[in-house]
Amino acid sequence: MLNRHVRLVRRPAGKLSAADLELVEGPIPEPGPGEVLVRNTWLSIDPSIRIRLAETTPNGYLPPLRPGDDLTGLALGTVVESRDPDFAVGDLVSHTLGYREYALVGSRVQTIGGYGAPARIDAGELPPQWFLGPLGSAGLTAYVGLFEILELDPGDTLWVSSAAGAVGALAAQLAKIRGATVIGSAGSAAKIGFLRDELGIPSFDYHDGPLPESLAALAPGGIDAYFDNVGGDHLTAALDALRYAGRIALCGAVSGYDGAAPQGPPNLFTMVSKGLRMRGFRAGSFTHLEEPMRREVSGYLADGRLTYRESVFNGIEEAPAALPAMLSGATVGKTLCRLGA
Amino acid sequence: MLNRHVRLVRRPAGKLSAADLELVEGPIPEPGPGEVLVRNTWLSIDPSIRIRLAETTPNGYLPPLRPGDDLTGLALGTVVESRDPDFAVGDLVSHTLGYREYALVGSRVQTIGGYGAPARIDAGELPPQWFLGPLGSAGLTAYVGLFEILELDPGDTLWVSSAAGAVGALAAQLAKIRGATVIGSAGSAAKIGFLRDELGIPSFDYHDGPLPESLAALAPGGIDAYFDNVGGDHLTAALDALRYAGRIALCGAVSGYDGAAPQGPPNLFTMVSKGLRMRGFRAGSFTHLEEPMRREVSGYLADGRLTYRESVFNGIEEAPAALPAMLSGATVGKTLCRLGA
Repeated sequence: MLNRHVRLVRRPAGKLSAADLELVEGPIPEPGPGEVLVRNTWLSIDPSIRIRLAETTPNGYLPPLRPGDDLTGLALGTVVESRDPDFAVGDLVSHTLGYREYALVGSRVQTIGGYGAPARIDAGELPPQWFLGPLGSAGLTAYVGLFEILELDPGDTLWVSSAAGAVGALAAQLAKIRGATVIGSAGSAAKIGFLRDELGIPSFDYHDGPLPESLAALAPGGIDAYFDNVGGDHLTAALDALRYAGRIALCGAVSGYDGAAPQGPPNLFTMVSKGLRMRGFRAGSFTHLEEPMRREVSGYLADGRLTYRESVFNGIEEAPAALPAMLSGATVGKTLCRLGA
Repeated sequence: MLNRHVRLVRRPAGKLSAADLELVEGPIPEPGPGEVLVRNTWLSIDPSIRIRLAETTPNGYLPPLRPGDDLTGLALGTVVESRDPDFAVGDLVSHTLGYREYALVGSRVQTIGGYGAPARIDAGELPPQWFLGPLGSAGLTAYVGLFEILELDPGDTLWVSSAAGAVGALAAQLAKIRGATVIGSAGSAAKIGFLRDELGIPSFDYHDGPLPESLAALAPGGIDAYFDNVGGDHLTAALDALRYAGRIALCGAVSGYDGAAPQGPPNLFTMVSKGLRMRGFRAGSFTHLEEPMRREVSGYLADGRLTYRESVFNGIEEAPAALPAMLSGATVGKTLCRLGA
């Protein structure tokens, strides 16, 4: 039996295409001391890996992948062989070596990926892949961004960009449940339909007109807080729309991931005029909030107040297409790749 | 007797020159009900008025001045006629109608300038102009930036840009007195000499080499906090030099005041990688901290731990030259214009 895994063929020029990635076969690795062999069952398809496909990565970020390297990403799987006393065969674990059928991880072994060591998941009766979505990294990112970074108040008007994505859809709904006035933006009619009709979030397609006008139509008095998943012109528009003492949570900047020369907002000085605050974050620095997040979010999932949408690809052979599809905006909600039983 | 005042002739193209301003004569105004007539004795020559000489001002800022308008700015003067029950003839007051010999202000009259209503000053034995400098707006700006915005810790390594300016020199010294490791930057040999030899702040001239190298030479391990008076390439360099969880106080952006198209830092995404915080502020929003600031700063001035340097122009006729001189970097410390007795 072989292990199939996805690797980088060449750095994408502009938008990532499936041809920049390839599926290759290799032997199933043998766990060394302290390692476990995991058969992956769910792969999380997240935008942030795109950052590591460029020649250089931002200061403080993980290093770039090189052509020939395997992709990495959050994943869920079952322990099939264990030489780590912390894990037993049959355990469900989350880890950061996705984009492959079999992964070697260990609680005392350094793995790269930014979301910490492998962790045993007790999914109980819940769909296990929720621990990659609303009860995992996406949920924690939304929760931290809203409540730690933005210190969201029920009186706030909040704008969430990329609001139909894995993190955005959770952030928009959690903020609304907590009493804030929420507006969303996204990049397709399908996403706007999902936001308006299924989530009840007033939203606009950023292709439909200048951002300041679209924002003003939904939030005529301005906004108090901005959950940024996009960067670029969205961040510029937010700086102008924010009221005095407004806050910005910098979570992602997908507008810059395709390799266009990054540009900071030309109106940054309005932060002085209006006493604004901006803070960047990654969920991996706030794992101490995982338990309260899971309690709150699983309650909303159970009572139906929170809608969770997945876009699922099937089999490792679809993984090279899943990432470009998600990055180009073709998927709604959390994008996943399910691997065979 | 006449009132001489400074007005804008034309919007500067690039750097402000004295020819863009003119000194004109007019009648001394008569106070109406609720107003006082102040004979100005000290004018504060501050960089921020440059922002209002452009065609447009940043979102949230005061509106642009038009050619023909009088300049405004912080000033100190003596009440010579009062129809405001809150002020008596002979009172020393600070207000925001500088760049003129006589000003009409009032505690219940709206004046424009951003630093609030006129305030009576009890200077005691202290030089009155200190209430435009270390005990006034400059002191409050430094104090708020360090202790409210940056939440400075004695273990921090702090970079202050424009460190030989009115605010920068106070911020650098206050931070050092409180125990932080401080490095400074400025734009002339005279300023670097002042910083190194008189204030004991390790400093570099930003003309002397690439900012990242100059910073690394003085702070090889990076910085924890940045007090930004410059913006532009300085802010970009700070984002790269900041360590995890670093903080930025946005106070001014003098690099952009001369009308070059403003550009945001291209490396803003490093705020996500490193969990950075950035916050803009204006001292006028923190007047509740004026009393604790004055207690602390006057103590340091009295015991000699804090050095206060002034560059003084004489007479209203020098005011049109004072502002371009300060903006071009020709003055050290607080720039003032003293008006005749």
